[in-house]
Parts: sequence; structure tokens; C-alpha cells
Amino acid sequence: MDTLNFEKSDDRLIPAIVQDYKSREVLMLAYINQEAWQKTLQTGKAHYWSRSRNKLWLKGESSGHVQIIHAIFVDCDQDTVIYQVEQLGDAACHKGYRSCFFRKVVDGRFETVGELVFDPEKVYGK
Amino acid sequence: MDTLNFEKSDDRLIPAIVQDYKSREVLMLAYINQEAWQKTLQTGKAHYWSRSRNKLWLKGESSGHVQIIHAIFVDCDQDTVIYQVEQLGDAACHKGYRSCFFRKVVDGRFETVGELVFDPEKVYGK
Repeated sequence: MDTLNFEKSDDRLIPAIVQDYKSREVLMLAYINQEAWQKTLQTGKAHYWSRSRNKLWLKGESSGHVQIIHAIFVDCDQDTVIYQVEQLGDAACHKGYRSCFFRKVVDGRFETVGELVFDPEKVYGK
Repeated sequence: MDTLNFEKSDDRLIPAIVQDYKSREVLMLAYINQEAWQKTLQTGKAHYWSRSRNKLWLKGESSGHVQIIHAIFVDCDQDTVIYQVEQLGDAACHKGYRSCFFRKVVDGRFETVGELVFDPEKVYGK
């Protein structure tokens, strides 16, 4: 069993880049610790560590928009991973966009260019 | 001018996901601070903050493998960006691979699957 390097940052978290397994679109970035990493490998569903709620987070646990793991890649320093996933519900962003990266930088301003897939109020409530 | 949220982490760094502007392959992940962000916008070449050397880093300054910015995307929390780049020299990884993510997780082990583009000893010396 090869291991990731969680010791590099004080909070023992490393970033996971989440990419659509077919289109290669980057959907989001979240953080994992050892527990989230193990849960992801064991279940085949993307788990993260929520920095805001300070707890293990199965992506999709409230929205149903689970991410099914198709492949995982590790970088040269073992301190970043890519999860290539099938995004259920077609949207990764809690704001209802397919990708969290729904804004493009144009002349220093952030312009919305992404695709809105669902109404967050209907999925998460108010 | 819209702004990124550098205050979220203690070190005032946020991750930049680097993606090939044509194939959408993820090439690497590095960190930026306000200075690296401004330099990138001003020059059109990817700049980062090197955590190991603790200094501003023009990617390619020693290898010549500069990254020409084609587009930049910002996430919902303004604490992660995507640089879509043209990678000069065809390799982003200092180990000579096209992508830093040259290993795939297979049954818990990291197997090399990526394409080796150059010999690091020839590019960086020993």
C-alpha cells in the first residue's frame, strides 16, 4: 500500500482535484485527510474533509449528488490527487453549477460563463 | 477588479490547478499568493509561490518550460483557480513527465502510467 504525504501542511490536509472522467472538465477542488482517503478507496465514492464544518464529508450526502470514482491519480510529491469521477446529478457546485469554476477572469473581472444545472434552494432548502 | 480570497489559510496561499488548454489534461497543482496572481495577470505567464524555496516562482525560469496563460477560471469561494495553459517544452513535471500526475492508484498502489518527455538531469543538471 503506497501512502500520501499528509504531513506537509499543518492541518494534515491535501487537495483533491475533481475531474469529470469523460470530458476532463475540472468540477471542484476539495481537501482530504487520511480518513477521507481511506473511505474513498473503500467505498468508491468521493469523501473529503470539510474545512468549514470540520468533519468527514461524503460528497452528495445532502444533495444526493454523489461522485462515483472511476480513477485516481497521484502527483510527484504525493501531496495532491486527482479524482476522476462520474458526477451524479450533473452538478458538483453547491451553487447549482456543473463546475465550481463557473467564472472566467476577463480583464481582471470574474464573469459567469458556467452552466447552471439546478436551483440550490430546491436541493438544499433555504 | 474582482479579488481572490487569500485570507482563508494561515499561509495566505491558494491552490492553482494547471490544465492543458486544449486537451484539458491536468498538468500540476501549485500555490499562488497575491504577488504571484498579479504577476500572472500582468505577464500572461504562470507565476506561483514556491513553498519549498519560499519565493516567487516563474514556472520555467530554469527549465525554459514556461506556461502561457490562455484562460483563468475562479471557483465559487474565490479560493482556488484554474490556469488553462500552453505548456512549452511539453512537460510540466520536474521529473520529466508531461503531467505531475503520472501515477495511477491501482489496488492501493501507485503505478506509473504517464508519459516521460525529458531527462531531468539534462534539463536541470545534477
